[in-house]
Amino acid sequence: MAKIVTMGEIMLRLSTPGYQRFIQADSFDVNYGGGEANVAVSLANFGHSTYFVSKVPENPIGESAVTALRKYNVNCDFIARGGERLGIYYLEPGASMRASNVVYDRAHSSMAEAKEEDFDFDTVFEGADWFHLSGITPAISDGAAYLTELALKAAKEKGVTISMDFNYRKKLWSYEKANKVMTNLMQYVDVCIGSKEDAKYILGLTPVTTEKTGIEAEDYIYRDIFQQMMDRFGLKCIASTLRESYSASDNSWSACIYDGKEFYHSRKYEMRIVDRVGGGDSFAAGLICGLIEGKDIRESLEFAVAASALKHTIPGDVNLVTRREVENLMGGDASGRVQR
Amino acid sequence: MAKIVTMGEIMLRLSTPGYQRFIQADSFDVNYGGGEANVAVSLANFGHSTYFVSKVPENPIGESAVTALRKYNVNCDFIARGGERLGIYYLEPGASMRASNVVYDRAHSSMAEAKEEDFDFDTVFEGADWFHLSGITPAISDGAAYLTELALKAAKEKGVTISMDFNYRKKLWSYEKANKVMTNLMQYVDVCIGSKEDAKYILGLTPVTTEKTGIEAEDYIYRDIFQQMMDRFGLKCIASTLRESYSASDNSWSACIYDGKEFYHSRKYEMRIVDRVGGGDSFAAGLICGLIEGKDIRESLEFAVAASALKHTIPGDVNLVTRREVENLMGGDASGRVQR
Amino acid sequence: MAKIVTMGEIMLRLSTPGYQRFIQADSFDVNYGGGEANVAVSLANFGHSTYFVSKVPENPIGESAVTALRKYNVNCDFIARGGERLGIYYLEPGASMRASNVVYDRAHSSMAEAKEEDFDFDTVFEGADWFHLSGITPAISDGAAYLTELALKAAKEKGVTISMDFNYRKKLWSYEKANKVMTNLMQYVDVCIGSKEDAKYILGLTPVTTEKTGIEAEDYIYRDIFQQMMDRFGLKCIASTLRESYSASDNSWSACIYDGKEFYHSRKYEMRIVDRVGGGDSFAAGLICGLIEGKDIRESLEFAVAASALKHTIPGDVNLVTRREVENLMGGDASGRVQR
Amino acid sequence: MAKIVTMGEIMLRLSTPGYQRFIQADSFDVNYGGGEANVAVSLANFGHSTYFVSKVPENPIGESAVTALRKYNVNCDFIARGGERLGIYYLEPGASMRASNVVYDRAHSSMAEAKEEDFDFDTVFEGADWFHLSGITPAISDGAAYLTELALKAAKEKGVTISMDFNYRKKLWSYEKANKVMTNLMQYVDVCIGSKEDAKYILGLTPVTTEKTGIEAEDYIYRDIFQQMMDRFGLKCIASTLRESYSASDNSWSACIYDGKEFYHSRKYEMRIVDRVGGGDSFAAGLICGLIEGKDIRESLEFAVAASALKHTIPGDVNLVTRREVENLMGGDASGRVQR
Amino acid sequence: MAKIVTMGEIMLRLSTPGYQRFIQADSFDVNYGGGEANVAVSLANFGHSTYFVSKVPENPIGESAVTALRKYNVNCDFIARGGERLGIYYLEPGASMRASNVVYDRAHSSMAEAKEEDFDFDTVFEGADWFHLSGITPAISDGAAYLTELALKAAKEKGVTISMDFNYRKKLWSYEKANKVMTNLMQYVDVCIGSKEDAKYILGLTPVTTEKTGIEAEDYIYRDIFQQMMDRFGLKCIASTLRESYSASDNSWSACIYDGKEFYHSRKYEMRIVDRVGGGDSFAAGLICGLIEGKDIRESLEFAVAASALKHTIPGDVNLVTRREVENLMGGDASGRVQR
Amino acid sequence: MAKIVTMGEIMLRLSTPGYQRFIQADSFDVNYGGGEANVAVSLANFGHSTYFVSKVPENPIGESAVTALRKYNVNCDFIARGGERLGIYYLEPGASMRASNVVYDRAHSSMAEAKEEDFDFDTVFEGADWFHLSGITPAISDGAAYLTELALKAAKEKGVTISMDFNYRKKLWSYEKANKVMTNLMQYVDVCIGSKEDAKYILGLTPVTTEKTGIEAEDYIYRDIFQQMMDRFGLKCIASTLRESYSASDNSWSACIYDGKEFYHSRKYEMRIVDRVGGGDSFAAGLICGLIEGKDIRESLEFAVAASALKHTIPGDVNLVTRREVENLMGGDASGRVQR
Repeated sequence: MAKIVTMGEIMLRLSTPGYQRFIQADSFDVNYGGGEANVAVSLANFGHSTYFVSKVPENPIGESAVTALRKYNVNCDFIARGGERLGIYYLEPGASMRASNVVYDRAHSSMAEAKEEDFDFDTVFEGADWFHLSGITPAISDGAAYLTELALKAAKEKGVTISMDFNYRKKLWSYEKANKVMTNLMQYVDVCIGSKEDAKYILGLTPVTTEKTGIEAEDYIYRDIFQQMMDRFGLKCIASTLRESYSASDNSWSACIYDGKEFYHSRKYEMRIVDRVGGGDSFAAGLICGLIEGKDIRESLEFAVAASALKHTIPGDVNLVTRREVENLMGGDASGRVQR
Repeated sequence: MAKIVTMGEIMLRLSTPGYQRFIQADSFDVNYGGGEANVAVSLANFGHSTYFVSKVPENPIGESAVTALRKYNVNCDFIARGGERLGIYYLEPGASMRASNVVYDRAHSSMAEAKEEDFDFDTVFEGADWFHLSGITPAISDGAAYLTELALKAAKEKGVTISMDFNYRKKLWSYEKANKVMTNLMQYVDVCIGSKEDAKYILGLTPVTTEKTGIEAEDYIYRDIFQQMMDRFGLKCIASTLRESYSASDNSWSACIYDGKEFYHSRKYEMRIVDRVGGGDSFAAGLICGLIEGKDIRESLEFAVAASALKHTIPGDVNLVTRREVENLMGGDASGRVQR
Repeated sequence: MAKIVTMGEIMLRLSTPGYQRFIQADSFDVNYGGGEANVAVSLANFGHSTYFVSKVPENPIGESAVTALRKYNVNCDFIARGGERLGIYYLEPGASMRASNVVYDRAHSSMAEAKEEDFDFDTVFEGADWFHLSGITPAISDGAAYLTELALKAAKEKGVTISMDFNYRKKLWSYEKANKVMTNLMQYVDVCIGSKEDAKYILGLTPVTTEKTGIEAEDYIYRDIFQQMMDRFGLKCIASTLRESYSASDNSWSACIYDGKEFYHSRKYEMRIVDRVGGGDSFAAGLICGLIEGKDIRESLEFAVAASALKHTIPGDVNLVTRREVENLMGGDASGRVQR
Repeated sequence: MAKIVTMGEIMLRLSTPGYQRFIQADSFDVNYGGGEANVAVSLANFGHSTYFVSKVPENPIGESAVTALRKYNVNCDFIARGGERLGIYYLEPGASMRASNVVYDRAHSSMAEAKEEDFDFDTVFEGADWFHLSGITPAISDGAAYLTELALKAAKEKGVTISMDFNYRKKLWSYEKANKVMTNLMQYVDVCIGSKEDAKYILGLTPVTTEKTGIEAEDYIYRDIFQQMMDRFGLKCIASTLRESYSASDNSWSACIYDGKEFYHSRKYEMRIVDRVGGGDSFAAGLICGLIEGKDIRESLEFAVAASALKHTIPGDVNLVTRREVENLMGGDASGRVQR
Repeated sequence: MAKIVTMGEIMLRLSTPGYQRFIQADSFDVNYGGGEANVAVSLANFGHSTYFVSKVPENPIGESAVTALRKYNVNCDFIARGGERLGIYYLEPGASMRASNVVYDRAHSSMAEAKEEDFDFDTVFEGADWFHLSGITPAISDGAAYLTELALKAAKEKGVTISMDFNYRKKLWSYEKANKVMTNLMQYVDVCIGSKEDAKYILGLTPVTTEKTGIEAEDYIYRDIFQQMMDRFGLKCIASTLRESYSASDNSWSACIYDGKEFYHSRKYEMRIVDRVGGGDSFAAGLICGLIEGKDIRESLEFAVAASALKHTIPGDVNLVTRREVENLMGGDASGRVQR
Repeated sequence: MAKIVTMGEIMLRLSTPGYQRFIQADSFDVNYGGGEANVAVSLANFGHSTYFVSKVPENPIGESAVTALRKYNVNCDFIARGGERLGIYYLEPGASMRASNVVYDRAHSSMAEAKEEDFDFDTVFEGADWFHLSGITPAISDGAAYLTELALKAAKEKGVTISMDFNYRKKLWSYEKANKVMTNLMQYVDVCIGSKEDAKYILGLTPVTTEKTGIEAEDYIYRDIFQQMMDRFGLKCIASTLRESYSASDNSWSACIYDGKEFYHSRKYEMRIVDRVGGGDSFAAGLICGLIEGKDIRESLEFAVAASALKHTIPGDVNLVTRREVENLMGGDASGRVQR
C-alpha cells in the first residue's frame, strides 16, 4: 500500500437526469468531483493510501465535497477550509449525435484563490511515494499555478515520483499561457499522460504527418510525439488514451504507452457509455496503480485501460470498481454475463 | 424574424418512466405537445415569432398546456379557452424490438369541438409570413376540418405561404374520409411534407414499383410520387423523411426533397433514440425555418434533417436545440465529443 | 385455458436505479420474483389458470410478494404463511462490459424451511394439466429438495405433464449435490429446458467436441447432448436458449428444441437489454404455453423465443407482454415502429 | 366471509407530487380509484369476498385499473370491457389553508356509457350478502342511473342487503335531478350513509335549526334529520361522518349513527392528513364490515371511524389497513408509538 | 391591466428534497427566483403586464432562468445577456425547530456586475405605472446600487409610482452601508414595505419601547415607527408583514399598513409551511396589485396577506395562485375543504 | 477530542417513501444504521475520534454499510469482514395515529454470528476514553452477548468509561433472558440510559406508584427508580428521555438525569417529526459528548436533549447536526427562523 498524493480542485457537479436539457430540468443530480479528486478515489479504491490536497469553502457545500471523498476512503486531512465558494460545473449528458454540454462556473473558487499558507507541503509529502496532478490545477488561476510549482518542488525534494495528466482545457487558459506554464512544470515530471493535441498545444511540439490511417496512423504519430517528449523532458514513460467517438453513446477506448524503449498499444474496448466524465482520470489512476506496484508498462497500461473502460459504465465522476473487476475484464471477459 | 402561425391541438402526454409498461407505472411523466404545437416550439426556438392557434379547456390542465408553450416562447394570444377537456395521449416508450405503444384519449377535446367564433383569423394572419398545419387537425373532428379550411382560406387571402405535413393517423379517420378532406385542402398548400404512404392513402396516388432496393429504390419511388403530386397540386416543394427502423432503440434518419426541378436526398444519420415522438414535427420546423430564411432546398433540407435527428436525443415532444447545435451537426460533427 | 401449477421461492429483488453501483444507491427499486414465480406470471398473462405454490413469512413483506403475483392474475391460494423471512436478492444491473452483479441473501427463507404439512399436493394438482419447476427449488435447501420430489410424485400420480428448467446456480449447491438430486428427479420430467452446461454439470453428461464454430457448432453440440438426454431420461422434448452476450447491454437470443425426431433452431433476435433477469423464465413460460395449447415444437419454440426476447425490454423479473405482442413479433415485425 | 358486491366507476387519478400545483408538475402520481371501488378494496382487505361491477375500455389503461383492484384481492370477474375511455380525475393535494383541487375529466367513460347487456345481474348477485353503491354512480349519466336501478332491483329480488352512500357531487348533476333520481332509488336501500347536506339537497329534507353549537348542535340536527329519513324511507340504519376541517392539513373526524332506536356518536380523532381522498369510502366499508359481521351499531360505527381515520394517513384512494390495526386504534392507542 | 416593472437579480435555487441536509443530498430541486423576480411572477399571475429588468449570463443556465419567468408570463424583453455567472443560493428547508439553512453563492453574478449600458431605462419605463424593487438589489454590489438609482431616477421622471421592499440581508452588506445607500434611495420611494428591524438597521430609526406584549405591542411599535418613516420620507403608505415563527413548520402570518391617516392590522392566518421562501415577495406583489387597482389600503392589505399566506403552501420561490383563490381565502374560507 | 468506541450491529434500513405502506412501495429508501452505529456518527459529527466495532459480510452490501459510516467520519478499522449477511430492518414511517411499522430481518447476520477472533479488544480499547453500547447488541444472539461481555471486560481493564443504553427490544429476547444477561453486564457500566420500563423489564426493578400525573408523576417515578438503580449498581449517572407521543407526527421530547445527588429535568421540545428513528441514539451521543467534555450533568443533558430533538427533523437513522446548531437551539431559538 503506497502513499499517493493528488492535488487539485474538487467541484460540485450538477447534471440533468434522463437526458434532459438544462432548460427542462426540475432537479439536478449531485456529484462532487474533479480531475485529481477522481484519480484519488480510484487509487483509494484499489487499496492505496491516498491523500487529496485542496481547499474548500467553510460551509456545508464545502463539507459535502469533502465527505464525498472521505466516503470512498480518500484521506482529507490536507484539505484547507476557507475562501469564497466551491466551483461548479453543470453537465448535460449527451446521447447519440448530441454531445454532452458542460458549463463551467468555477472562477473565484476557494482552490483557485488558495494561498501558500493553506498547505504545509513538507508534511503532505512526508513518506509519499507518488504525487499526481493534472494540467487543470495550474490552469484555474495564477495562484493555483504558483501553488502547483511549490508542491512539485516539495515533492521532488522528497524524492516522490511525479505524474502529470495534461488535460488541456481551452475554456480555462490560452495556448500561450498553457505552454509557458506547463513547459516549466515539466522539469518535475516523471510520468506523463497526454494526447497528441496536448503535446501540440501545451508543449508546442509538432506531430508528424502520415498517409497511414486509423490505428496505424495513431501509433505512427504517437511513437513520434512521445519520442519528442522523451528527448525534450527526459521522462520515465508517457501514455495516452485513444478514444474513437462514434457518437455520444458509443465510443471505442484503448491507450498507448512509451518508455523510451518499447511502444505498446493496448487492447481496444467497445463501450456503451453511461457516464464518460472521469474516463481519463480513471485511466491515470489505473496507470499509477500499475506502475507503483511494479508492474511493467504493458500490464500497467492494460490495467489502466480496463479500469477506465469500466468507468464509462458508472454514473458520476469517480470510478467505483474493484481490482478484481478490472482484472476479470483484463482476463478477457467483456461479455457482461451475470455470475450466479 | 418571420411571423409564423401554426394551428392544431395541444395534448397532455402521459408517458411511463424507465421503459415501464403501463401496468407497472406508479407515475407518469408529464409533457404537453401535439404535431403543430411541436413545430411552433421549434420555430420559436430558432428565433422566429411564432403563434399557436388552438383551444383548451378553462381549467388548470388547459392552462398548464398553454404555459408549456409560452415557456418556450410561443405566442399564445390566439389560444381560445372553453370546451370540455384537454386531449390526452398515453405513451409507453418502446425499446429494442418492442415498439412504443400509444393510447389516444383525445375525443371530445376543446379543440375537436372548437367553433368558428373561437378564432378571429383576420387578426391571426395579419402580417403573417407562413402558416403551417398537419393532417392531424382536420382529422380530429368534422368541426376541426371545417375550421382548418377557414384558416387556410384566410391565410391564402393574406398571401401567407402554407405548409402541410400529412401525418396520416389511421386511428383518427378512414382512408376515404382522409382522401376526401385532404384532397380538397391541397388547393391551399404551397409546401408539402408527406411520405409515399401518405401520398397513397391520403391523396390516392399510386407509387411506382421498382426492382431496385434500399435507398436507391426509395429515391426512385419518391422522385415519381413527388412528381405526381407536383403535377396534380402545383406545389413549391415536397419533402419526406426516411426512417429505417432497425428497432425501437436504433433508427437511421434522412430525408428527400423535390421542387419540380431538383430531387435531393440528404445526409443520413444513425440514431440512438431517447424519444422519437415529435421527430417528424421537428423536421417540418427545420424545413420551414430554412425556406423562410431563403435558404435553397438542399440547405433547408440538411438543416431540417440535422435538427430532427437531434430531436430524437431529447425527452418530450418538443425539439429544444439551438440553431448553433444544428449547424454544428450539419457541419459534420456527429461524434458527440464534449467541448471543454 | 389450462390449469398450470408452478412451485418455488418468491424473493424480494432490490436493484439499483440508473446503473448505480450498490455503494452509490440511496434507493433500491423493489420487485418481487423468482424462477417459477416469473413463469407463473407469464402463463397467467397468456390467459392460463396459473397457480403458484410457495411459502412466505406472515408479515407485510411476505404479503407484498403475494400481492405482486395476484396483481398479475396468478392464483395464490396455495401459498403458505409462516417461517422466518422472505429471501432477498440484490441486483446491480450491468452495462456494456460491466456485468450485472447479483448478491443473494436467501438462506433461511420461509420456502427454504417449508415443511410437508405446509402443502396439500392432492388438492394442488387436482385437475392440473401441467406442473413446472426449476432446478433452483431443490437447490435452496434439503427440505425444499424433499418437497420438490413430493410434489413431482403427486403430480405424476395425477397424470400431470411436468417440465423442468435446470437453471444451475453454482452459488447454491455443488456439482456433486446437484447431480445427485437432479438425476433422481429426472424420472418425473416430461419436458426439459437446459443448456449444455446444465447437462454437463447437473446431469454429468459429456458434450461432444467439434471443430465447427458459431451457431453451426452450437447446433452440432446440442443435437448430440439432447440425444444423450433423450436416451437416458426418455423425455418428450428438450429445449435450450442460446444467448450470445456481446456485452451486458447487447445480446443475441435464439433457442433450439428436440423431440427425438426433429431438431429445430429458432429465429435469432438482436436485443438491446432493458432488464435481462427472467429472460429464461419467460422462455420456459412461452414454451409451456405453446405445447399446452397443442402447437408443434417449431411454433412453440418460436413463440417462446419471441416472448422471451420481448422480456428483455421490460424492467423487473416478470414478462408483461400480451399474446398479440408476441405474435406480432413472431410475424416478423421487430422494427419497433409505433402504431398510431 | 361474506359475499359483497359494489358497482361504480373506477377512474385514473393523476395527482401532483410534493404539494405542487398542476402548472409545476413534471410528473403525476398514478392511482386508480372511485367511490365504490375504494369500498371494495377496503372490504377485501378486511377479508370479505368482494366483487366490483364496472366497465373499462379494452386498452392497457383499462387493464391497469382492473389490475389495481385485483392486486388488493377484489374479484374483477364482473368488470366488462369496451367503450371509449377510462374516466380521469386530476388531483392537486392541498395544504394548510389551500384546499385540494380536483379537476374531473370523466365524461364519456366506459362506465358512463355502459349498457344493460354489459352485466348479468342475476349471476352477479347469486349468493350475495350485501350490495353497496354510492350516489356517484347514478350521477355520471342517465344510462348509469338506469343501470343502477336495474342492479338494485336484481339485488333486492335476491334478498341482498343494500347500502347507499349519498356522496352528492354538485359538479355532476343538479339538485333537482339528484333529488328525483335518488328519491326513487331509496326504495331499495336498507342502510344509508349521508350528511345533513346530502339529506337536504338530495332528499329535499329540511334540517332542523338550533341555537346549540359545535358537536351538540350536530347531534341535535342529525338526530332530527335521521329520524326524518327513517320516517320516510324505513331504513335499518343511517350514519354520517363528521369532519371538522381546520385546514387542508388538519381535520377532526368522527361519525354518528341511528337505527330508529339509538342515536350514537363515536369517538373523535384528530388527524394530520396524508391523503384525504377516499376517507368517506373507507368509512362506508368499515360500517358494512361491522354490520355484516353482526356487530351492533356502536361497535360497527367505532370500527368504521377508526378505519377511516387511518385511511387519511395513507397515500392513494384506497384504505390499506389491516383489521388488527383498526382494532388497535379502537382499543385506544392513537399515540403512533412504534412496536419493536 | 397595468404595466409594472421590477428589477433585480434572478438566481438559481438549489434545494434538498425531503428535508435532507446538504450532506445527504444526491439531487437538488431546481427553481429560479429572487426577490423582485418573485414579485413579477405574482403580478403577472394576477393579470398585470409585468416586466423584469435584469442581466443573466449568455449560457443555458442563464436562459433557463429567463425561461422560468416567461413560463409564468413575465415579459423578459429587458433582461440583458452577458457577464460571468448566474447567482446561486443553496436551500436546506427546515422542519420543526430546525431552521432552513441558506448558503449564498451570488458574488460575481451577471446582475451584480451589470453596467449602465445593459439597460435602456427610458424604454423600460415608457408607459409604466409602477416600479418595484427591493433592498437586495442595491446590496449585491456597488454597481447594482448605482444602477438602482439610475432606474429610480428614470422611473421618477416618467411619473411612475415606486415601491421598495427593504429586505435587509446582513450577509450582503453592513448596517452602515445599507443605511447610507438606502436613505438616499428613499427620496424616490412612494410605497414602502419594511419591518421595524429594517427601519432600525437600514434607516437608523429607533423603535419605541413598550410594556405591552404580543400583537398589541407590535401595533404600538409599528404605528410609531411608520409615523417616523412618514415624517422623514413623505411616503404614500408603509406596510409590514408580521410573522410569528412557532417553528420552521408552523407560523402565523398577518400584516399592518399605515397611510398617514389610518393604521390597519389585517386578519391573521395560522400556516403549515410547505415553502416559506418568497412569502414576503408574494405579500409585496399582493399589496401592489391592490393599490394599483385602486383598492383602499385595508382591502389591499387583506389581499396581500391572503395571497402571501397561500404562497407558504406552494413549493418554490414564486406564488402560483389565482386571484380567485386569494379572494376565496379573503372571503373567509381557510378550511381547506375540497370542492367537487 | 476524545477517543470513543462503540460496538454493535449495523443494518440496512429499507423504508417506504411518502408515507406509503409496504404493499404500495415500488422503491425503498436506503439507509444504514443501528443503535451504536448511530451514536458513533453523532459523536464523530461533534468532532470526537470515534470507532465502530462490528462485523459485516464480505460483499458489496457489507461494504456499503461501512462506507455509510466512513462518510460521516467514523473510524471503521475495527469492522471485521465475513459471515452470512447484513441484517435488515424494513421501516414503514407512520403518520398521525398510524404508528411506524418495523419488520426485522436480522437473524443470522454477520454480527450476530461474529466470533471472539474477529476482534482484538486490546487494540480496540488502547487509549480509549469511552465505550458505549446498547442492550440491543447482547440481545441479537448468545454469541453477541458473550462478545459484549468480553468487550466490557477489556474496556474496564483499560479504565475506559462505559455507558449502556438499555433499549429493550421485546422482539429480540424475553424479559427473563434480558434480565439475566443485562443484570450481569451492569457490573461494568458507569453511565446508564434507560426508561422506567427498561428498569422494570430488564433490571426487574419495581417503579413506585403515585397519584400525581403528567411530568410531576414522571419526575417522582424517575427519581425513585434512578435511586434504586444507583443503590444496586453504583453508577455515575443515569438518564432517560421522556417522549410524549401525541401521534406518529407530533411528540414532545425532554429528559431527566440523576447522579446520586441531583435530579434534573431538561427543557421540553415540541416536535414535528420527520424521522424518529435514532432519536434515542442521538440523545445518548449528546449525553456522552457533554460528559466526556467535562460539562456538568445539567448542561450535558440539555445538550443531549437539544441534539436529539433536532435529530427528529432529519431523514435517516443518524443525527447530522453540528455542534453550533445544537448550541443555538439550547440557547433558546426553536423558532426555525432563517438566517440570511
